[in-house]
Amino acid sequence: PPGKKVLIVYAHQEPKSFNGSLKRVAVEELSKQGCSVTVSDLYAMQFEPRATRNDVVGCLYNSEEFDYAVETGKAYKRGGLSSDLIEEQKKVQEADLLIFQFPLYWFSMPAIMKGWMDRVLIQGFAYDLPKCYDSGLLKNKLSLFSFTTGGSKGMYTKESISGDIRYILWPMQHGIMHFCGVKVLAPHICYAPEPASEEERKEMLMAWAQRLKTLWKEEPINCSSEWYFN
Amino acid sequence: PPGKKVLIVYAHQEPKSFNGSLKRVAVEELSKQGCSVTVSDLYAMQFEPRATRNDVVGCLYNSEEFDYAVETGKAYKRGGLSSDLIEEQKKVQEADLLIFQFPLYWFSMPAIMKGWMDRVLIQGFAYDLPKCYDSGLLKNKLSLFSFTTGGSKGMYTKESISGDIRYILWPMQHGIMHFCGVKVLAPHICYAPEPASEEERKEMLMAWAQRLKTLWKEEPINCSSEWYFN
Repeated sequence: PPGKKVLIVYAHQEPKSFNGSLKRVAVEELSKQGCSVTVSDLYAMQFEPRATRNDVVGCLYNSEEFDYAVETGKAYKRGGLSSDLIEEQKKVQEADLLIFQFPLYWFSMPAIMKGWMDRVLIQGFAYDLPKCYDSGLLKNKLSLFSFTTGGSKGMYTKESISGDIRYILWPMQHGIMHFCGVKVLAPHICYAPEPASEEERKEMLMAWAQRLKTLWKEEPINCSSEWYFN
Repeated sequence: PPGKKVLIVYAHQEPKSFNGSLKRVAVEELSKQGCSVTVSDLYAMQFEPRATRNDVVGCLYNSEEFDYAVETGKAYKRGGLSSDLIEEQKKVQEADLLIFQFPLYWFSMPAIMKGWMDRVLIQGFAYDLPKCYDSGLLKNKLSLFSFTTGGSKGMYTKESISGDIRYILWPMQHGIMHFCGVKVLAPHICYAPEPASEEERKEMLMAWAQRLKTLWKEEPINCSSEWYFN
């Protein structure tokens, strides 16, 4: 609805890809609704995935023995994180909904997107101890994992060797988003768009647009182990 | 035993860290056994985690619409992958055992190590379709995930909110290593070394050295969904 803010974190190298189309569909449909949409196009930004000393501007708390979590936590508090991280954190802070759009790489997100999680979701900003899970610092936000697979739907069932697709979602939805207090909407999965026909791909894009029309009425999933493993 | 080759893929920024010590212990103990040990120190190498067009030397198969999997698969066949990838693939090819040493970041490996998986384990080299899982192309190799956690052991049980630690291992051990045909040894997990005493940390290092002494007699785990979820 008008006024809602959406951040799409997008990880595909090729604008003409099916992931590129899914991203475009989301931007169009959400904008049409009056949402304000921001895209972090990670490859286009050449987003840095490596968690290093460069993420801290100025002196270290302990330069004798570099501890990434400690240093970035302290740097966050004094406004001393590198500017690319501050930029992303601002986008997250303002967003009501985070959409992650990516092709599944090795049962997970591409490294460039994992780097976004590792570097942006800093202690003090996204969580604190014990402020995690339902009391995580990014409460009152929603998230949605939207991704494509190489394998068909039938390859991701409990009985098949690759297992239920939900097993794969546990670290991403629960371990990251829920940990930060972010509520999780049902994932949007496009199975095997590559071998599909042009017609089928069109249908998948329309289904995504259709879902987005009523997205704000959706209830988050109950993000606990039962959803994933029962 | 003498003659065995080990590749340690290591992801920590700080040599003085506990992960650094675990890596050193492994190099020392395995060398003492007469193994030949190679270390890929990802941060020191400034290893590139992003999967981009730069991974292909020369012309693309389809420069109109870049498809990373297609392009790297074809480049692998003609020897046209970027030199850093060829280098890593040689190390993998020669190794009998792959050890991954890292701190757990967000229920998974750090992005720099995920990038190693995304970029090194190319179709045609690590797997092919349908040559995957037990017939993956890296058959006859062993792997072992050795990592540290922030949380205590009690935080990673079925009943706790963070769930069983094995849920986290599924994408890494099964989705990557098993998919490539690599057998998986039991993980080596050091829980919460940070808040531990110097004495306790020393014990953890000795336990790792101790395990390595009889590592070659270990049987791989039965890497199917039962091990992870039952």
